[in-house]
Order: sequence, then C-alpha cells, then structure tokens
Amino acid sequence: MSSDFLALAQPGVQKLSPYVPGKPVDELARELNLDPASIVKLASNENPLGPSPKALAAIAQAAAELTRYPDGNGFELKAALAERCGVKANQVTLGNGSNDILELVARAYLAPGLNAVFSEHAFAVYPIATQAVGAQAKVVPAKAWGHDLDAMLAAVDDNTRVVFIANPNNPTGTWFYADALARFLAKVPDHALVVLDEAYIEYATGGELPDGLKFLADHPNLLVSRTFSKAYGLAALRVGYGLSSPAIADVLNRVRQPFNVNSLAQAAACAALADTEYMVASRALNDAGMQQLEQGFRELGLSWIDSKGNFIAVDVGREGLPVYQGLLREGVIVRPVANYGMPNFLRVTIGTEAENTRFLKALTKVLASG
Amino acid sequence: MSSDFLALAQPGVQKLSPYVPGKPVDELARELNLDPASIVKLASNENPLGPSPKALAAIAQAAAELTRYPDGNGFELKAALAERCGVKANQVTLGNGSNDILELVARAYLAPGLNAVFSEHAFAVYPIATQAVGAQAKVVPAKAWGHDLDAMLAAVDDNTRVVFIANPNNPTGTWFYADALARFLAKVPDHALVVLDEAYIEYATGGELPDGLKFLADHPNLLVSRTFSKAYGLAALRVGYGLSSPAIADVLNRVRQPFNVNSLAQAAACAALADTEYMVASRALNDAGMQQLEQGFRELGLSWIDSKGNFIAVDVGREGLPVYQGLLREGVIVRPVANYGMPNFLRVTIGTEAENTRFLKALTKVLASG
Repeated sequence: MSSDFLALAQPGVQKLSPYVPGKPVDELARELNLDPASIVKLASNENPLGPSPKALAAIAQAAAELTRYPDGNGFELKAALAERCGVKANQVTLGNGSNDILELVARAYLAPGLNAVFSEHAFAVYPIATQAVGAQAKVVPAKAWGHDLDAMLAAVDDNTRVVFIANPNNPTGTWFYADALARFLAKVPDHALVVLDEAYIEYATGGELPDGLKFLADHPNLLVSRTFSKAYGLAALRVGYGLSSPAIADVLNRVRQPFNVNSLAQAAACAALADTEYMVASRALNDAGMQQLEQGFRELGLSWIDSKGNFIAVDVGREGLPVYQGLLREGVIVRPVANYGMPNFLRVTIGTEAENTRFLKALTKVLASG
Repeated sequence: MSSDFLALAQPGVQKLSPYVPGKPVDELARELNLDPASIVKLASNENPLGPSPKALAAIAQAAAELTRYPDGNGFELKAALAERCGVKANQVTLGNGSNDILELVARAYLAPGLNAVFSEHAFAVYPIATQAVGAQAKVVPAKAWGHDLDAMLAAVDDNTRVVFIANPNNPTGTWFYADALARFLAKVPDHALVVLDEAYIEYATGGELPDGLKFLADHPNLLVSRTFSKAYGLAALRVGYGLSSPAIADVLNRVRQPFNVNSLAQAAACAALADTEYMVASRALNDAGMQQLEQGFRELGLSWIDSKGNFIAVDVGREGLPVYQGLLREGVIVRPVANYGMPNFLRVTIGTEAENTRFLKALTKVLASG
C-alpha cells in the first residue's frame, strides 16, 4: 500500500489550495530589506485605528492567568453577546475567528455528495471550507459584482446543505437590503442552512443594511456569523461568533475544538464589545477614508465598486497583479483579487488619512510608470 | 425534507459527545458562591508556577499589533522550533493547541470506512477526533494501565490510517522506553500515520524517555505532537505543534485554518521557548510536588499509578465521582476519570506545595467522611 501521505489524504484535502492571506508587513520587510515601520499595509481589512485601550487593559489583566486553560464554554463572552444581540446564550457559538464558524458549518453539514451554494466574487473561505470536506461548490454568477439572490435560490437543490451569503460582501463591498433578504429567506428550503456572513456589518452605518439578527426568530435554518477582527480591532486574537437557532448552535458546539477561543481573546472581546467610543471612532475613520480614496480614484480617472465595508475594490484599468507588485516596491501592500475572478481590480483596505495618502501617491506613481 | 439540524448533521457529528474539560475556577465559584481566589484547581494539568515573565513581556509587546492578523505562516515561531528541534521549518505544523494538530490529522487522513488505533485509558481527544469524521475507533486494551504496543500493532489493518500513542500517557502517566518505540515504529505499516503525542515530554526528566524527534528521519509516517500548554505555561493562548516529514506537514498545513495560531500565542511561544529558567523551575516544582503527593497517598494508604507527567492518577479505593464532588465542596477541583474507564481513580495535577497540601487535607477529610 502507498506510503505517499499526499495520496493517502482525503480526496477533498488533496485538492485544497490554502487561503492566501494579505502579505504580512514583516515578510515584505524581509524580502525587500525595508524598515517594517515604513510599510503601509492595506491588504487585510484590518482596523487602522490601532488597539482599543480597553481591550489592551483586559488582555493585561487576563494574562495573569496565562497558565490556565480558557473557559471552554466562554461563559462571560457568550453572556455579553447574548445580551447585546438579544438572543439566548445557547444560540451563540464562539469561533477562532469567524473563519472557524464557517468551517464548523462545513464540517457539520457538508460531505461528498452534498453541496454548498455561494456567489461568484465571494469570500475565498467558502470554496475552501467546502472543498476540504469533499463537498461540491455551486458558484452562482454575480450580478453587478453582488449576489444574485434569485439565481442563488434557483441553484439550491435537494443536496444543498449550506448557502453562504455575505452582507456586505468581501472583496466587492456590495450589499443587499432587508426586503431582498426577507424574500430570500422565505424561499430557501428548510434543509439548507443559510450562513449570513456579517463580518463587515458594523461598518455599514446609517441603518441601511438589514440586521440579520432580526431574522433569526423566524428562520431556524439561519446562522449569522460576525467577527471581532474588523471594526472591533482584534484580528490578532481570533474571535468570531455565530448566532443561530439553539439546534444549530448545539451541533456546532459539538464540532468545535474544546478551547477554540483563547483566554485573552475572550477577555479582549468582552472589553471591545463594551467600548462604544472605539466603535464610533472606527466608523468615522472608515467613512472619512472611504471618501478620501474615492476622491483619489476619481482624480486618477479610475472606477471602483461602491462599498459598504472597510475596503474598496478599484479597477486599475489593466492587469492588477503588476500594479500590486509595483506598489510593493513602494512599500505599500494591497490585495490582488485575480483569484476572486477580478483580475483588473485591487482590493484596498481603508487606512488612516496618512496611509491612504501614501497609497494614492504610490498608485499614481506606479500607474504612470506602467 | 427534514429541517431538524441535528438529523441533517453528518452521522459522525450527530454522535459526538464533546470533550469535558476540567471544571473552571470561575464556574465552581459561581456554583458554590465561593471566592475564586480560595479555590485550588488541580484538574487540567496546568503549570502551577504562574506565567513566565518573558512570555508576559512578549505578549505586551505583541499586543501593540492587536488589530493586525497573525502571520499565517508563523515564520518566526517555526524557525525557532525548527532550530530547537533539529528539523526544517517545512516539517513544522503549528496548531491552536496540540488538540488542533490531532484534529488536523483526523480530518486529513480519516473518514468513514477507515480507522484509528489507540489505547484504552488514552487521551479523550483521540476518540472524539476519530468520531467527528465518522471513522472507526479501534481501542486496544491497556497493559498495566499503559499502552500495549504489541497488541496495538496487531490491531493495525489495511484500513488503519492513524495510530495515536502518547508518551507519557494522559491520564495514566504511563510511558514506554526507546527500544519499545523503535520496535513499534519498525513494524507499523507505511500507510498508517503514527501520532506520537508528547504533550508531557518536558516533564519526563532524567533522559529516560525516548525523544520522538530522533525517530523522524527514519520514519516518514511519524508525527510528533507537542504543546506549549503544559511545561511552557501557555495554556491560555493555545499553541501546539506537530513535527513530521515535509509531506505530512504540507497536507496538515492545507487543512489548518489560515490563522489558527494567534499573534500573542506566537510571540509568547517564541519567548517561552527561550526561557530556560522557567523550564528548569517548572520541572523542579513538578518533581517536588510529585514526591509530596506520593508521600501523602502513602500516608492515606492509597495506591497510585507511577507517572512521568505533571499529574498522577490515584486510586481512591471507592467510586471516584463522589470523592471528586466532596473535594469540590472543599474548594478543590481535580479530575474524575470514569470516562477514561478508571471509575475508582482521580487524576490530580501536581500543584505548588501549598496547593498540594490543601488538596491532601481536603482528600483526607472527604475520605474520612465518606
């Protein structure tokens, strides 16, 4: 029998292409021999505001118990989330980032012979999580870069167990309104779990986007996933959560690792949840930065996709990869999105005013030289 | 079609009974209305020494980058581990605790129709990880509470993809020597991945136990898993690692979540790895505490299983669960191990001298009253 440990792996695993994250600052610094402090990273939709002082204080306090295992039940964080979100604690699943929540759903409900439905230009983890368990991915063409919810509905069949939808969507920033979500949820068959990925919902200010939580009571097949990695500023610590019917939460809690969310993450998330000031500042910085980048693109004659997230996909009018590489040489990291079927686009995270200015200058230079 | 989200879950998942961790201090404090500071927890094989100051300093420094995603490739930590362990960085897989490593192996190599071999009285995560992916568990009877390696070898068949062995074993503390491991590895068929779980190896002082790493070069089907949760004192942060042939590491790195090990964990692990003083002190405290507990058991007329870990399984001479409950009322948390097929035993983590004394007094009281 074979001793080839790639051939011995599960078929879905053998075909996995791992997620490609934004290039880390230290990696670029090593490669180009740059001072890390001189590098601007607008590649991973991270919060440019820097850490919440309240989260830092919570971490310092929790670190006194560094030798102790985390609370595997996440008692305090679940209680805080339940109160904030108007659900019961038994409707909450904590994840090592919301990435963990997406994978837990796939491992619990997908397998060879079953399928997941999601949109073209949607988050790369949907196909990866589906592939990892050997299930089929049914990718539905996008409409104006956003989800075509009617076409997604038509793609759901008897073997569909999961439908991933994102509002707003990453990497496009596109969104749908409450009436569209309501029509969609009313028609999705009961046997398909709808994952409504709201990783960026906190940035969708002004009350325009639907709050997925309002649909939970009427839809036992709905799971809303959210994260502390973006507007709450805790990407380093990995904490996300799913909100659903107790039945789904019970299954996901069986599948998750017993200590999937670490102690400092739990403590920091509790503090971040209470730090209203930080959230207000995060949103204000994002709104201002979004306007700054749009204005910059306008001056460069570039078009973009309107976005409700903390990022914007800009059409550079040519192949994006060489532009991305040119920006790297200027010490600016953005995200090429050819792997999302968007070869002429770059996804740019909204930074501070200075970071945005630095990026726009570098972009101007790279486009002029190309 | 059903809308019952337990019935819709994968068959292996439906039957999962989640891992039962040691009772958290805060939980007992809430239940019995006790001051958390008055509670002694010797239930989760945590390091009683308290945090390494070097790890704390590394955390404080890394927290400045709280809003940034972790380095998904774990460059620095992998480099440090590779140097320390005498392997290449492409032989290292980082995990969210070594629990993550065990699950990655199961997800990559097990499925319905395949099986995993492990011993009776072995770590509860082996059956859970096997069950979660719907594979068969072949549990081999123990010999004198330890692994019967010959019988385990005989249990390996064409459908075996994973063999879990632990040295020392948790919760028994039993161990095997280098010659036994060498004979075993020489005979395991090539298609079975041997996971040598060395979570407690740092406590096995005196050079008696084999160093699993010395067998890696000759055995491309060997993976050694280790953790920073025990002797390194970082249980709160979740960091473990696997060392294997590059082929196995490549597969596991495809399966793992892109940011499975958080930033503070990576930084703290690098610092802990370099903190020789802390390791020396951890071992010394453990050796002294082990003698103290053995002496206490001797005085109580109790027998125990000799242990090379940072815990000891004591035979309380009657059903262990009521004794465990009696200890809880005294504010002392240990671990009942009936679910490990050891109903008359309690597993007690080696604590500080004061904690051990407190436990022995409480045990004396509970046994006298029962």
